[in-house]
Amino acid sequence: MVNVGVLGATGMVGQRFIQLLDKHPDFEITALAASSRSAGKKYEDATTWYLDDAMPESVKDIVVSETDPSLISNDVDILFSSLPTENAAVVEPKFAEKFIVASNASAMRMEKDVPLVIPEVNHEFLDIIEIQQKNRGWDGFIVTNPNCSTIALTLTLKPIYDNYDINRVYVSTMQAVSGAGYNGVPSMAIVDNLVPFIGGEEEKMESETLHLLGILDGLEVKPAQFGLTASCHRVAVLDGHTESVFIELDQNVDIDDIKNDIANFKSLPQELDLYSAPKSPVIVKEEDNRPQPRMDRNADGGMAVTVGRLRKDPVFDNSFKYVLVGHNTIRGAAGASILNAELINRTIL
Amino acid sequence: MVNVGVLGATGMVGQRFIQLLDKHPDFEITALAASSRSAGKKYEDATTWYLDDAMPESVKDIVVSETDPSLISNDVDILFSSLPTENAAVVEPKFAEKFIVASNASAMRMEKDVPLVIPEVNHEFLDIIEIQQKNRGWDGFIVTNPNCSTIALTLTLKPIYDNYDINRVYVSTMQAVSGAGYNGVPSMAIVDNLVPFIGGEEEKMESETLHLLGILDGLEVKPAQFGLTASCHRVAVLDGHTESVFIELDQNVDIDDIKNDIANFKSLPQELDLYSAPKSPVIVKEEDNRPQPRMDRNADGGMAVTVGRLRKDPVFDNSFKYVLVGHNTIRGAAGASILNAELINRTIL
Amino acid sequence: MVNVGVLGATGMVGQRFIQLLDKHPDFEITALAASSRSAGKKYEDATTWYLDDAMPESVKDIVVSETDPSLISNDVDILFSSLPTENAAVVEPKFAEKFIVASNASAMRMEKDVPLVIPEVNHEFLDIIEIQQKNRGWDGFIVTNPNCSTIALTLTLKPIYDNYDINRVYVSTMQAVSGAGYNGVPSMAIVDNLVPFIGGEEEKMESETLHLLGILDGLEVKPAQFGLTASCHRVAVLDGHTESVFIELDQNVDIDDIKNDIANFKSLPQELDLYSAPKSPVIVKEEDNRPQPRMDRNADGGMAVTVGRLRKDPVFDNSFKYVLVGHNTIRGAAGASILNAELINRTIL
Amino acid sequence: MVNVGVLGATGMVGQRFIQLLDKHPDFEITALAASSRSAGKKYEDATTWYLDDAMPESVKDIVVSETDPSLISNDVDILFSSLPTENAAVVEPKFAEKFIVASNASAMRMEKDVPLVIPEVNHEFLDIIEIQQKNRGWDGFIVTNPNCSTIALTLTLKPIYDNYDINRVYVSTMQAVSGAGYNGVPSMAIVDNLVPFIGGEEEKMESETLHLLGILDGLEVKPAQFGLTASCHRVAVLDGHTESVFIELDQNVDIDDIKNDIANFKSLPQELDLYSAPKSPVIVKEEDNRPQPRMDRNADGGMAVTVGRLRKDPVFDNSFKYVLVGHNTIRGAAGASILNAELINRTIL
Repeated sequence: MVNVGVLGATGMVGQRFIQLLDKHPDFEITALAASSRSAGKKYEDATTWYLDDAMPESVKDIVVSETDPSLISNDVDILFSSLPTENAAVVEPKFAEKFIVASNASAMRMEKDVPLVIPEVNHEFLDIIEIQQKNRGWDGFIVTNPNCSTIALTLTLKPIYDNYDINRVYVSTMQAVSGAGYNGVPSMAIVDNLVPFIGGEEEKMESETLHLLGILDGLEVKPAQFGLTASCHRVAVLDGHTESVFIELDQNVDIDDIKNDIANFKSLPQELDLYSAPKSPVIVKEEDNRPQPRMDRNADGGMAVTVGRLRKDPVFDNSFKYVLVGHNTIRGAAGASILNAELINRTIL
Repeated sequence: MVNVGVLGATGMVGQRFIQLLDKHPDFEITALAASSRSAGKKYEDATTWYLDDAMPESVKDIVVSETDPSLISNDVDILFSSLPTENAAVVEPKFAEKFIVASNASAMRMEKDVPLVIPEVNHEFLDIIEIQQKNRGWDGFIVTNPNCSTIALTLTLKPIYDNYDINRVYVSTMQAVSGAGYNGVPSMAIVDNLVPFIGGEEEKMESETLHLLGILDGLEVKPAQFGLTASCHRVAVLDGHTESVFIELDQNVDIDDIKNDIANFKSLPQELDLYSAPKSPVIVKEEDNRPQPRMDRNADGGMAVTVGRLRKDPVFDNSFKYVLVGHNTIRGAAGASILNAELINRTIL
Repeated sequence: MVNVGVLGATGMVGQRFIQLLDKHPDFEITALAASSRSAGKKYEDATTWYLDDAMPESVKDIVVSETDPSLISNDVDILFSSLPTENAAVVEPKFAEKFIVASNASAMRMEKDVPLVIPEVNHEFLDIIEIQQKNRGWDGFIVTNPNCSTIALTLTLKPIYDNYDINRVYVSTMQAVSGAGYNGVPSMAIVDNLVPFIGGEEEKMESETLHLLGILDGLEVKPAQFGLTASCHRVAVLDGHTESVFIELDQNVDIDDIKNDIANFKSLPQELDLYSAPKSPVIVKEEDNRPQPRMDRNADGGMAVTVGRLRKDPVFDNSFKYVLVGHNTIRGAAGASILNAELINRTIL
Repeated sequence: MVNVGVLGATGMVGQRFIQLLDKHPDFEITALAASSRSAGKKYEDATTWYLDDAMPESVKDIVVSETDPSLISNDVDILFSSLPTENAAVVEPKFAEKFIVASNASAMRMEKDVPLVIPEVNHEFLDIIEIQQKNRGWDGFIVTNPNCSTIALTLTLKPIYDNYDINRVYVSTMQAVSGAGYNGVPSMAIVDNLVPFIGGEEEKMESETLHLLGILDGLEVKPAQFGLTASCHRVAVLDGHTESVFIELDQNVDIDDIKNDIANFKSLPQELDLYSAPKSPVIVKEEDNRPQPRMDRNADGGMAVTVGRLRKDPVFDNSFKYVLVGHNTIRGAAGASILNAELINRTIL
């Protein structure tokens, strides 16, 4: 068993880490860190538990520590981070001096020597770790996963990008309130309403997606070269981001071929049969009215993205449209970091 | 006063007609028709009233008749129709033999001799009425308004189309449940959820919008020539459709010019100061997080569409994006038919 | 394995039956019946599946039959019924001529020779079956479970009633929309709203609860003798009924004793370790803000009721108050019938 | 015109004050105070406006001051306070040295020399002001209104209490999220859920109601002597508290008499025809499924409470039940303080 810890353990994504790591065959939680308000208390007492499933017994008695590397035992190997961005920017590098940090924070994602990875999409970017350690003189390292809405979108784009030349992507999102944290969206803001703005989200989708589909040239990432524009909106859904996607290729579209490419897509995590890897990263639904967040967010434990309404565009040549749903705090956050760690554990450690 | 009636008077849109016509300076409701289940009863007894404002006193005692032209008094001039499509296809032509029918139904919209009109966009299409009456030998006629999501979109496109060459439009909608009628969307389908499908809606948006922005060539409509593709979704909002719009022009975009073009847009209904005409058909909001359906759907009595997040596309040349909100059962349905009737009353009768 | 079937198999509660019976150690679904619209189709094709978990593979290919005993194979032993009341009144007696019918319908509940049973509360009422078979000359029989809101309430009252003299109970419910069936509550009726009326619900709670807590005198039920009055309301919750309960005893209240009585309550299903029996029928929560339907409805697979805010009444003598949450379509419907069948299977068959 | 100001002007209830005072015939807003974060800014810039109706033009340019009496012009007569309780306890007495404070805060409500008033219920309690000024040596004074759920309940109890001997009241509430302030209830807490706890609410209802229905003995309040117990719950409704009420009288119940007593109830504000007074303080609905918060909260501008499902208790003697809806931030907060001020303005100033 690899000993692991969670930074930001009391928050929304922190709780998902704990839920997903419970009964994990390779990872065992032995450390939990949070703000000074929680430090010194048993996790059970420090935390208002938000998830529908009850808090795992195994973490209840762990005493929460401050978010300080010197307070984490040396027998911990991997720290999962769901720290707020500003905090992560300062703290994660300190932890990386001796620990592996698998981070869901956006702070370090676009640093040149920090791999931004979705295991099914660009596992080869893990090679960058080598430079990171050399550059920074660290014994540990940081690996990051993308933004929640980016992960779901990129998983569906990957099998298309592998088989066709993409010209343009237009994406309009309908995102769940959990993406803003437990207190992020007041009920007064969202009941009988939606909010057409999520700070920084469009920029992240527009840059991270191309980065993830890029190639390693030496140890530098050359982003993919098509255009992708996003409009992001918050809707009255608890969990599960929905995205409406329009794609133009450089060539004729055979919708059945594309459907097969997406449905049959598998990658390294599936080959290695990693514990958190979904059987298929993307599930294709034929029903007219799917995917729906409440019905499809938990597909394959919340780790599979569901695509539906895959249809030829009746208006634009070489174009098609679809709708996707992905669980934003599982596949789009905690589960993403854990899958990164499982891949590292199997291929690097 | 012009005597008017409402067909489909007990339904969702029928109730909006009644609400909006109450205290109207030029129109007085003297006839109400509905299905045989309601016929013979006083409107108050025949109707489960759905709107937040109470049922107007003036209609409570009107006895509902069957939907049959022979049962409507000859002193009625205009009939507003919110009949279901299949029903409208059969019944509206019979009424048009002697009455003016201002219809919100989709049945007759794309008939060559039936004008599909938004008064601010293509009032000149009313000229088609002449052929309709000649062709069909009717004393009355049918005028239609577009689909709810089309009206809101087209009102925002019109000032752009008048000033620039549009290449492409991508639109993704987040539509209110009232658009499906009172019983249309079960709560089990939409609480903590959304549904990425509305039957026929995308097709209507894709065809009706270009038709409305087209020109009359003789008395035939030549649709506008750009491409417009839509993806339509139902969200947990009671009233007010939200649409996320991406536009590519044939030329450079100066976002302030476009903002001014939209904000300053006025047309014939504003010049004629029609009773139901909003001061500005489209209101432009500067706040990051607007428009929102609950906050903006009632702008100018629900007859103005609100645009926000108008921004240059950071990715595509000659491109920009925005979000709009319009009230689907006021501007997008009953109010649209009434504004058509007001225009006809002022310019034709 | 006992072969079982489901009547009303395509509906909301029918689907819960199928979900809960999947992987059941003793029962295997071999027959599914529904309306003539579904008959002759494979279950997968006949059904719009509503539950978040996917349809079990094992039922997908079962061909749905009409709801007619002659079409059900003789090797089926138990039929679970989620038929609409009027339908159940006619059809269930026909099935009971040769099958065991474990019914969630209200039609036969108050018949003198039909046991209305919650296994933890009044399993001894199963003795009534004997008369039923004699009276009616049936080889099979009907056993019923109470209304959803009654089951949850009665499970919490039982350990109190066993230990104290109850004088009065006032209960005000906040019930989930699933209780009305998938199409029962339109979203227009419940978003940003609640509906203070559920037809027949208050009467069922007021009569069924006392019946369940009654005693068998010979083979006749003498209902419990205290007063219970209910007010029932529908709220914007998908699953899980919440009830606010005020109780007056005939004696002094020691709130800790009552808490212990409730928390320690176990009964025959727990002793027999029936497959669907929760470890404790009622879970007591200490947190101020629990139980909550979304957090507590799935306690012990949805078969345990959760009580919280158990507090001495500061105003009335000998009085206390609490709030309960129970899953209305699991513990309150399909799970209730299944637990009845498990008890019968173990003790009678 | 009387010059008035609002303390806590940027909050939820502060905004309601501003909305309701706009176009008031007797009161004109000339001062707005809020926290130091807002002070010095124009109201328009200091405030995130939450209400569906747009911010009134008349207040946009008023510069917000700190909450300090020395910063409020002497030509202001009345200050409406929606300060948080702890803050109100410190600050309101300072303002009362020279201003009239009409407060919605709970801080001073139960002080012996501070009148807690609903104009339709106990306007005579305003006589207490005299002692307050004498006791405290103030030129101004404080008058308070009760808690939102108490006001609605007490308005319905008053006509009953005036005509019958009440023995017991049991009330279970379903309260709107706006009662907790804009950020009070996260969407994660209430979508597909409810929360069965509102801190301090039950205690307020249990004490304030009896106080309001009490009598002045000399200048001391003798509370009403019946028992009232409450259980309070938060539901997914934006505005409008719903309360389920069970009442036992000391005598036989004729439900039509009670209905008439409630429906015909009028009091001093109606006689004086005060600007904010509803025509009838309580409206009685006959429909089975009313009152509903979204349909009834705005009755008579949000100042009337709506009662429905008034029915004889089928179980308990001398007992009946009903459901009420009242607008929590209009009749239950800002409108309550304004009606108090209107009464004072007409009868005392």
